Amino acid sequence: MKVTERLAELKNLMQQYGIDYYYIPTNDYHGSEYVADHFKCREYISGFTGSAGNILVSGEQTGLWTDGRYFLQAREQLSGSGITLFRMGEPGVPKVFEYIAQNIRPGQCLGFDGRMVDAFYALQLKKIVESKGARLVTDYDLVGMVWTDRPPIEPKPAYRLSEQFTGVECGKKLDAVCRWLEQKHADMLVVTSLDDIAWLLNIRGEDIHCCPVVLGYLVIKPLERFLFAHKSAFSPRLRQELARDSVILREYDDIYDYLAQVKPGSRVAVDMHVANYQLVNAIPQDSKILSVVNPVKMMKAVKNPAEIAGERTAHIKDGVALVRFMYWLKQNIQKLPLTEQLVAAQLEAFRGSVGDYLGPSFDPIAAYGPHGAIVHYSATKETDARLQAEGFLLLDTGGHYLQGTTDVTRTLLLGKKATQEEKKYYTAVLCGNLRLAAAKFKKGCSGVALDILARQPLWNMGCDFNHGTGHGVGCLLNVHEGPNAIRYRIVNQPDGNVEMQPGMITSDEPGVYLEGRFGIRLENLILCVEKEKNEFGEFLGFETLTMAPFERDAIDPDQMTAEDKKLLNAYHEKVYNTISPYLDRNEAEWLMDACAPID
Amino acid sequence: MKVTERLAELKNLMQQYGIDYYYIPTNDYHGSEYVADHFKCREYISGFTGSAGNILVSGEQTGLWTDGRYFLQAREQLSGSGITLFRMGEPGVPKVFEYIAQNIRPGQCLGFDGRMVDAFYALQLKKIVESKGARLVTDYDLVGMVWTDRPPIEPKPAYRLSEQFTGVECGKKLDAVCRWLEQKHADMLVVTSLDDIAWLLNIRGEDIHCCPVVLGYLVIKPLERFLFAHKSAFSPRLRQELARDSVILREYDDIYDYLAQVKPGSRVAVDMHVANYQLVNAIPQDSKILSVVNPVKMMKAVKNPAEIAGERTAHIKDGVALVRFMYWLKQNIQKLPLTEQLVAAQLEAFRGSVGDYLGPSFDPIAAYGPHGAIVHYSATKETDARLQAEGFLLLDTGGHYLQGTTDVTRTLLLGKKATQEEKKYYTAVLCGNLRLAAAKFKKGCSGVALDILARQPLWNMGCDFNHGTGHGVGCLLNVHEGPNAIRYRIVNQPDGNVEMQPGMITSDEPGVYLEGRFGIRLENLILCVEKEKNEFGEFLGFETLTMAPFERDAIDPDQMTAEDKKLLNAYHEKVYNTISPYLDRNEAEWLMDACAPID
Repeated sequence: MKVTERLAELKNLMQQYGIDYYYIPTNDYHGSEYVADHFKCREYISGFTGSAGNILVSGEQTGLWTDGRYFLQAREQLSGSGITLFRMGEPGVPKVFEYIAQNIRPGQCLGFDGRMVDAFYALQLKKIVESKGARLVTDYDLVGMVWTDRPPIEPKPAYRLSEQFTGVECGKKLDAVCRWLEQKHADMLVVTSLDDIAWLLNIRGEDIHCCPVVLGYLVIKPLERFLFAHKSAFSPRLRQELARDSVILREYDDIYDYLAQVKPGSRVAVDMHVANYQLVNAIPQDSKILSVVNPVKMMKAVKNPAEIAGERTAHIKDGVALVRFMYWLKQNIQKLPLTEQLVAAQLEAFRGSVGDYLGPSFDPIAAYGPHGAIVHYSATKETDARLQAEGFLLLDTGGHYLQGTTDVTRTLLLGKKATQEEKKYYTAVLCGNLRLAAAKFKKGCSGVALDILARQPLWNMGCDFNHGTGHGVGCLLNVHEGPNAIRYRIVNQPDGNVEMQPGMITSDEPGVYLEGRFGIRLENLILCVEKEKNEFGEFLGFETLTMAPFERDAIDPDQMTAEDKKLLNAYHEKVYNTISPYLDRNEAEWLMDACAPID
Repeated sequence: MKVTERLAELKNLMQQYGIDYYYIPTNDYHGSEYVADHFKCREYISGFTGSAGNILVSGEQTGLWTDGRYFLQAREQLSGSGITLFRMGEPGVPKVFEYIAQNIRPGQCLGFDGRMVDAFYALQLKKIVESKGARLVTDYDLVGMVWTDRPPIEPKPAYRLSEQFTGVECGKKLDAVCRWLEQKHADMLVVTSLDDIAWLLNIRGEDIHCCPVVLGYLVIKPLERFLFAHKSAFSPRLRQELARDSVILREYDDIYDYLAQVKPGSRVAVDMHVANYQLVNAIPQDSKILSVVNPVKMMKAVKNPAEIAGERTAHIKDGVALVRFMYWLKQNIQKLPLTEQLVAAQLEAFRGSVGDYLGPSFDPIAAYGPHGAIVHYSATKETDARLQAEGFLLLDTGGHYLQGTTDVTRTLLLGKKATQEEKKYYTAVLCGNLRLAAAKFKKGCSGVALDILARQPLWNMGCDFNHGTGHGVGCLLNVHEGPNAIRYRIVNQPDGNVEMQPGMITSDEPGVYLEGRFGIRLENLILCVEKEKNEFGEFLGFETLTMAPFERDAIDPDQMTAEDKKLLNAYHEKVYNTISPYLDRNEAEWLMDACAPID
């Protein structure tokens, strides 16, 4: 079926069910950022393959809402579908709920699959719809009815991650949650986010592409815990281990019935911004729902010493793979016929040759020339560009190792000489990256207070990038995790602007994107560390975890301050000293040149 | 009566009225920052003269809560009073409401004058107290009963400020509020903040020391407006002018009765964070209170072209006075016996010799040597230090002119040569000041995103200052006004972290305070302006309004980047070109040297 046919069939079903507007978000039942194939309803119905975007279908107009990263890609992929692109964040563009509020009429009906929308947003939609004299229907998965060859949910085996890597036993983590329950006078906490469950139970799986998590819901009470998951994914031994911490396995879908039967008067803590609407709806009226920020999120964000040690190791391994790849590419760019997909595969092979590598932490971005300007470009058979010995190749990749997760972007110069314009932008992005990583700041700063350090070299030239500067990163978990982030806008969310804390790992990834020409992004992961404590207070800073050289030939030293050069040279020295022992002689010689000081 | 006697008498009254805890904030009935003498209950009962601080009296312990600016001063002034100092913001120090929550017992009673506490905070206290099984009493002004020689409220004449200075007629401002009422489906807006009323009605007065405002409350309805104020302060002509915009004068205290009689079902918009508890309590139960951020605050914060032009003029006048003073001081420091109070008076005299000067915008701070480390030091007869030809004199002063309000801090070197340590800190503070003022940033940044530019030179040396970097400034109005501010912490307030907007005037005042040694603060006012609009978005920046040289002799050029020097030299050139035409030859020559470029 073509996209237009799928859409036509969906509209037929909408008419059948009396639904005037049908909302299809990018989500699964857990608020995951990346979702298993089974849940890719938005992609199925629209053909748009970006990682973020929501669809609203109606008789008059079908719209796709997506953000700045995907404007170019969405325009291409939607062409011919009849779907209108709504550029989120641009002036005058209504948000989905605003669009609904402006258009829905009394007596009409808005529908969506209640499992696919978080309770907070669903309740907002309900309020809007009802204020317009319209109503909400959330019981039907209409896309599922259209999608006859839909991939089933295929649970993969779950496994235990040893304490050597997790640092803290599952039992102790659960105890911390129980202390939190006591403080909040709550009878239970319902955890629905897959990475929080994996972290809490020290388990990992492969249920989502690139995310080592296990599909499930977890209910934590002081004396008993229920994990609602696919039983077949759990070996008898793992079940036994979980049972030792009073974690009892139940079937995945039984969570709804379980919640429907909680004792009257129960105080049920749940993160309404994450838990799905169906699930929250299942909790009986005679219970008290405590709307909370899931406490596990912050526990997980502040890495413990074992996790930090693991991340350092993972980044050395990743650095070795990346440096070997860079050497290989520089040697072969003139000799071999190379494409975006091919070099991404080659980098993956280098990662695969390093011990404890489990797989990519997200789909690699290898974007050559103008493709680099498409922020989250993903090469397809059709677009896969042939690399030449000139211009920039933007490579944003990452890996999962038993010890931790990496996420690194380098923009490689494929020719010998960069143009003055390439140097100008590369140097600005580089200075932003270095200055943010070098920040020394008072405890109490959120990422909002730090962001300008990364953007200032660009802002000073009237340039900017249309994405956040940094996101939290999990430890053998999701490559994007909250709540830590670096951005200049304050967000209106309960835990949207948290203070930086020692132990948090965040990305530092300024960029610049010139449509039709090239893109530059330079990304390191930075670990928040204590710096100094004196009569003026507590000072924090960062330790850069990522170990890979920048492109000396793309730098204009005249654009850098003396301090910038000091930072770059110190970083390069550290990269060389750390990585070179794992390289062969040719690679090490190349790295020495790549890391030579600039003056 | 001595402080201890006043306190004893208050405790007697508390016992008489069955009140166990009595709360005395720094406030008037309007949420003013500075208050008329009549309202200085906290100062009367404690002897602490700082501009901020709250008292909680109980049988066991009387505490004063104040912030970092006043720790040193409070410690001195409270000595012998038996009052405990609670250092707000220090680790482990409970907030007043936390202290109450920890200590109050079932059956006990917390009291305060309901007119002296904003409704939002009072309702929080009520909730806490009632959750402990205690109760709240807000009808008694117990300090007023102790304070027999209390200064009466003495209303001064109000006057109209001409449209030449205000830029917009009162009628048009009121129309804007009425459009807002319509949007909010509100029947009336109750404005209780004095500067908002003055701005809205284009009137000024002298009812608060250093604040050109008129005591009053304003109720705005689409067709009628009531100003509750002291009628005697309004000339027949002014009354007539106000009546032309349907503003009817009523007596000051009648606001409570008026609100008590609003029509059932009325939708009354009021800023609960500002309006006092008594006033909100007066609104009948059968009305609907809309808790809003007072919209006038933002209208007033974004200055119109006439106000901006006026502020530029006021700052030139202020710069001339300040430069003439600086020249005089440098000439006479070795010749005349000078003290802190004397030089402050001399600067005031220079300001007085400039046209359209109306008076100081706050009590001047002239703090010599170690006094400079006391952030909001105010010289008294007892402390008034004799100036020597060495060390730093910190001068934080400002004036009201018909055209606008100024606020400027310079730290003057009284000797010829600064020590290396003095230079180190002076240069760091200066670089912070210059870099913040030079920021180019995307629309969408709040002060939180900019603060680090001012602090970074200090943070990098493990140093900090314990106050905000910037506050909004009124136009012939309060020297501190919201909502714009520059600080690194995100505050939990409805309009606490607003985006910078073109037209906002904010202070830029980093500092450093070394207890027992010296203090440095350098403050300019900066106007937010549009910089550039292109495919990357809208860029904003600042124009520095303040016109006065920094201390070249206290600068260590080696500590500055090339860019820092460029900024300083450009600023000094502008100061010289702007101010020198108004100086005599000797003054102009001195200014030329003071503004000579650094390399």
